[in-house]
Amino acid sequence: MRLISIDDVRRAAAAIADVAIHTPLLPGPSTDALWLKPECLQVTGSFKIRGAYHAIGALDPDRRRTGVVAYSSGNHGQAVAYAARAFGVPCTVVMNDDAPAVKVEAINALGAQTVPVPLAERVGRAEQLARDKGYVLVPPFAHPDVIAGQGTVGLEIVEDLPTAAVVLVPVGGGGLASGVATAVKAVRPSTVVIGVEPELAADAAESLRSGVLTTWPSALTSRTVADGLRPTGLSELTFTHLRERLDGIVTVAEDQIRSAVGWLARTAHVVAEPSGAVSVAAHLYQRDRLPGGPTVAVISGGNIDPHRLARILDE
Amino acid sequence: MRLISIDDVRRAAAAIADVAIHTPLLPGPSTDALWLKPECLQVTGSFKIRGAYHAIGALDPDRRRTGVVAYSSGNHGQAVAYAARAFGVPCTVVMNDDAPAVKVEAINALGAQTVPVPLAERVGRAEQLARDKGYVLVPPFAHPDVIAGQGTVGLEIVEDLPTAAVVLVPVGGGGLASGVATAVKAVRPSTVVIGVEPELAADAAESLRSGVLTTWPSALTSRTVADGLRPTGLSELTFTHLRERLDGIVTVAEDQIRSAVGWLARTAHVVAEPSGAVSVAAHLYQRDRLPGGPTVAVISGGNIDPHRLARILDE
Repeated sequence: MRLISIDDVRRAAAAIADVAIHTPLLPGPSTDALWLKPECLQVTGSFKIRGAYHAIGALDPDRRRTGVVAYSSGNHGQAVAYAARAFGVPCTVVMNDDAPAVKVEAINALGAQTVPVPLAERVGRAEQLARDKGYVLVPPFAHPDVIAGQGTVGLEIVEDLPTAAVVLVPVGGGGLASGVATAVKAVRPSTVVIGVEPELAADAAESLRSGVLTTWPSALTSRTVADGLRPTGLSELTFTHLRERLDGIVTVAEDQIRSAVGWLARTAHVVAEPSGAVSVAAHLYQRDRLPGGPTVAVISGGNIDPHRLARILDE
Repeated sequence: MRLISIDDVRRAAAAIADVAIHTPLLPGPSTDALWLKPECLQVTGSFKIRGAYHAIGALDPDRRRTGVVAYSSGNHGQAVAYAARAFGVPCTVVMNDDAPAVKVEAINALGAQTVPVPLAERVGRAEQLARDKGYVLVPPFAHPDVIAGQGTVGLEIVEDLPTAAVVLVPVGGGGLASGVATAVKAVRPSTVVIGVEPELAADAAESLRSGVLTTWPSALTSRTVADGLRPTGLSELTFTHLRERLDGIVTVAEDQIRSAVGWLARTAHVVAEPSGAVSVAAHLYQRDRLPGGPTVAVISGGNIDPHRLARILDE
């Protein structure tokens, strides 16, 4: 299995420069050495635009002209819809039929078609549409071009803060963490890259500890508030990247995740979704399990339900 | 009366570079040509650090060694406390005695002493402390060094987006608007700089329309949710700057301000205080009173009460 290289990430950075924001590193509001990498301020509200735009851009124009398809009810779906519109190609997003109307509308507003199906049928339907209609399937994380795109987050971090000692990155399917670990370790081998997972969806932590790719049933992972980190576990590709390149993984509790969301809004004035705030939760509440020194927490996205945020702010 | 020049602003930019964040211009989340200048992500949560740090830094070290004093229950007080700590000089902040405990604690946490007095006595007590103790009074807006510091917001805007056609800037005491108008009009005379005020605290709009510096009684201005824009009206210095350099002023209604705060949190993922969101309210709801073209809305601060934000998000 070929792992992506720092050159792949650099090529991705050049390819997405006109569309993705080079998000700033914000000094943490407390006095200790924390910086925030706020991908919640990114186009479409999450880092996902980096991988989606890079992957679609890397396709042969003749190949992608027929259209692209993705399965996602969340950030990846929005990102693929946005990127497809930028390239002027049709886009279909297969969504679970219980996805909130606001998410369906957001994807429709970007010009993409949505196809509601039961959760368990999403992947199958997307693959079927790819076969039947000739669409190109853009996977959420299990693709080298997607991982290289997400890796630009790590490249920007080490360029903007060469003295970073620790980078904390949320782990769901592992695309972001694979890309960030690739870029950071290539440019600054001494910088420690730590993945962060909810305790309730700690399949990557278990996989890395046991050395065997393990997925947790969705009946378990659906309990975490960090909905973006629930999915289907790592892929072989991301598992291999993380095993080779990630320095460690820590888990955070649900109340720590909620508390980090509130802390970010109250003191840093950024809106993070729970999945995006796990890195900050690790910094705030798991410090004794982390190395010291200048720390960057990647906030992967900001697409939180406003009423959920309101409840957290009232706590 | 000498007005500040673009050279004053450039000197201020050099002087504050190590402390203030060069905040990014964020593309607005909608498809029309809006950019956000999020000073809510600034150190201490508002643009005020720029003017306060510049003004204290410009003092003779022997003069400031005794200490500085400010009157403010809000962002200026935090900024002066932060800047004083950076220069290692004592700081006293005179606050109205009904200021929320959280604001008192924030200023104490920065190492400053707080002195609670009735609202009407704030200025007098600060002046008295300056006389009796030899402290240097750092005024919130009526000082050339403060205005030059705030002007760096405008300099960053025209540097980062030379094609900006319109800049929307909140007006309270007028320090930010004076500085921004100075910088923007000097570098890009064709860019239109528009001030924005709450309808309920529209003393600057009335002053500019009538040509006579007018202050509104606090019984009137205290009704606006935009607490940072309530103060005591313009000073002669800021009035003169705005009359010479501001292209116009628009007012926004209370429900428009609240709605802009919600829109910013939900779609741009930044937390703005009501005073900071008036510029976005003008873009969203007063478009027919504004010129077209690429527009930058300055979000002056993010220090909103979390429970107030929660109520807005639940609307």
